[in-house]
Amino acid sequence: MESIIQHLEKVRTTGPLVQNITNYVVMNNTANALLAIGASPIMAHAPAEMEDMVNIVQSLVVNIGTLDQYWVDSMSLAAKRADDINKPWVLDPVGAGASSFRNEALIQLSKFHPTVVRGNASEIMAMAKVRIASKGVDSTHSSMEALDAGKELSSSLQAVVCISGEVDLIIQGDKVAEVANGNPLMARVTGMGCTATALIGAFLAVEEDAFEATLSAMTIMGIAGELAAAKADGPGTLQLHFYDALYQIGGGQIQERAKVSR
Amino acid sequence: MESIIQHLEKVRTTGPLVQNITNYVVMNNTANALLAIGASPIMAHAPAEMEDMVNIVQSLVVNIGTLDQYWVDSMSLAAKRADDINKPWVLDPVGAGASSFRNEALIQLSKFHPTVVRGNASEIMAMAKVRIASKGVDSTHSSMEALDAGKELSSSLQAVVCISGEVDLIIQGDKVAEVANGNPLMARVTGMGCTATALIGAFLAVEEDAFEATLSAMTIMGIAGELAAAKADGPGTLQLHFYDALYQIGGGQIQERAKVSR
Amino acid sequence: MESIIQHLEKVRTTGPLVQNITNYVVMNNTANALLAIGASPIMAHAPAEMEDMVNIVQSLVVNIGTLDQYWVDSMSLAAKRADDINKPWVLDPVGAGASSFRNEALIQLSKFHPTVVRGNASEIMAMAKVRIASKGVDSTHSSMEALDAGKELSSSLQAVVCISGEVDLIIQGDKVAEVANGNPLMARVTGMGCTATALIGAFLAVEEDAFEATLSAMTIMGIAGELAAAKADGPGTLQLHFYDALYQIGGGQIQERAKVSR
Repeated sequence: MESIIQHLEKVRTTGPLVQNITNYVVMNNTANALLAIGASPIMAHAPAEMEDMVNIVQSLVVNIGTLDQYWVDSMSLAAKRADDINKPWVLDPVGAGASSFRNEALIQLSKFHPTVVRGNASEIMAMAKVRIASKGVDSTHSSMEALDAGKELSSSLQAVVCISGEVDLIIQGDKVAEVANGNPLMARVTGMGCTATALIGAFLAVEEDAFEATLSAMTIMGIAGELAAAKADGPGTLQLHFYDALYQIGGGQIQERAKVSR
Repeated sequence: MESIIQHLEKVRTTGPLVQNITNYVVMNNTANALLAIGASPIMAHAPAEMEDMVNIVQSLVVNIGTLDQYWVDSMSLAAKRADDINKPWVLDPVGAGASSFRNEALIQLSKFHPTVVRGNASEIMAMAKVRIASKGVDSTHSSMEALDAGKELSSSLQAVVCISGEVDLIIQGDKVAEVANGNPLMARVTGMGCTATALIGAFLAVEEDAFEATLSAMTIMGIAGELAAAKADGPGTLQLHFYDALYQIGGGQIQERAKVSR
Repeated sequence: MESIIQHLEKVRTTGPLVQNITNYVVMNNTANALLAIGASPIMAHAPAEMEDMVNIVQSLVVNIGTLDQYWVDSMSLAAKRADDINKPWVLDPVGAGASSFRNEALIQLSKFHPTVVRGNASEIMAMAKVRIASKGVDSTHSSMEALDAGKELSSSLQAVVCISGEVDLIIQGDKVAEVANGNPLMARVTGMGCTATALIGAFLAVEEDAFEATLSAMTIMGIAGELAAAKADGPGTLQLHFYDALYQIGGGQIQERAKVSR
């Protein structure tokens, strides 16, 4: 738990700049979550300023939710720059598998060595399938199959893979940790997965060990969701209490509530 | 009332996929409303994936709020595909009449046989005027004139037309139903009309009779607004209680509150 | 105080149309803030409809938060039209100085004579530096230096300049007013600066004296933030109580709380 608390403290004291090239639906959510946790979000996507932006931020978040070709080009420019100058970046493969356009965008972006990939079980399985088609990852979505896909994807990309769900799995090659925090009501608020990815971006900005940074982000995400759900009557009130919880969460609550198994 | 309750139950038990090509302002709102009522929103607009997306969803929502030519092309591709494979789709003509660009986009989209068109009185009148210019629909906005415009538009498009306002009118040719639910504070929250359109999309996904699906969506929208207004101090608190209400609303509340006249 | 109360009353009774060409992150926020204060927001950016839109609105808000070339072109068309037909418009130079792309866009937009420019200290300093590079505005960000930059920028553009921060400065040439309202928690909600700019747009629509309109908007913004903070547990609850406060705020609260020095 100590490392989680230290990472949170470091986000709050250093206020890292986190660039987000993300989807239209959740831009507001993820900016608010980053501000609430103590980071400074920058949302920018114009090709002409991608290098300038990646140069000044501490980490990059790329989320393909509402992508089109213009945005894929921006994302590629930013990811390439991050890769070139060793800035950590996290990829959220929203809707992987839903169209060949998305799959091709993910193949393209994967070339720039994402530090972390975070998705739900079916997105990670779809992405692994695209990468390792010859091995035939099944399309059924049990968590054990997703775990295998996640391990394959982690090895193949040399990246940390996070599969979020009722239990979140954080995977680096054969190393796996589980986070069992969160609340089912979170699935009824749009962009909660995207918000998790943005928080991973904030923690990557202050902690070099990407596995530990991801573990900390997912644990805090889950606990904030629990604290918010305790005050909420539904998804509307959950969302706002969630930002309050990110803003208020302290070491004591992390100590008491974190359900992490390594 | 029974059919309204059954439609809601069907949305919640089947969780239909609803594709939204909508405006930047309300993407978050409409995704949250669809999640709260029990549907699964997909927001996607890249031309390259329009066919893939329309193929996998149960209904399509097209909203021209912040349109530009790129989005008109995407909307046309998606609407054409929906028309070709008989997926129901609903059109929200935001700002109809405000520019000739919008009017031309609406003429273009109308060719793909929307199942339902939902707008406010002046939007429906503007759209009817564009379609039936030679008949000279007046530009004054009394509800009776809007009703006439709505009937004309319904006949001309062979679509259900919904005019939302203090009293919502649902029109199919000469058949008209009225829903008198809702609260004036809803007009002080952005995107409530767009949210109504998205909910119509969810109900179209589970009920073939488009008139009945629209009636159910508008009734539940209005009742959720009333429940939210009862807890709200202003438009900010209204919005979040509205999502909670969509999530919680039950048959008893519908039975008790629905003000539907056929 | 009387003029502030009168301006608010005029916004509420006339419900001015305010066009916004703004960034993806805050479109929802600024639309909600404008609705809550009593104005009518229009969000539109297609080049083909820029003239039609500027013709029908009472003021224009241009915000470069998530700009790209397409949007710069739309903004230029709209700003040019506003300049040509003497509609007031306000410019929000989000991220000025962060990239040369942004700086060039600001030089371009400045040509169309913004009525008001509102930014934080570093944005105003960056913008002044771009305009008056030969005079060498320093890049340190003390408020006194920002004040000098603001005066230079105001003279150079013949515009009102508003520097928002703990104390807001409203500047017209050598005339300066200070507004000391607001709450630090507002900085943890995304888009609060952009919302201030949108409110300035609403007040410009009803009051010809741009200095007074800006002063009124910033005072009401700050007081609404204080009222919201008093009810909030964090940034999530702050945001929604803020909209409620904009909706409810009355002359008595303005009289009691306004901290304006001229």
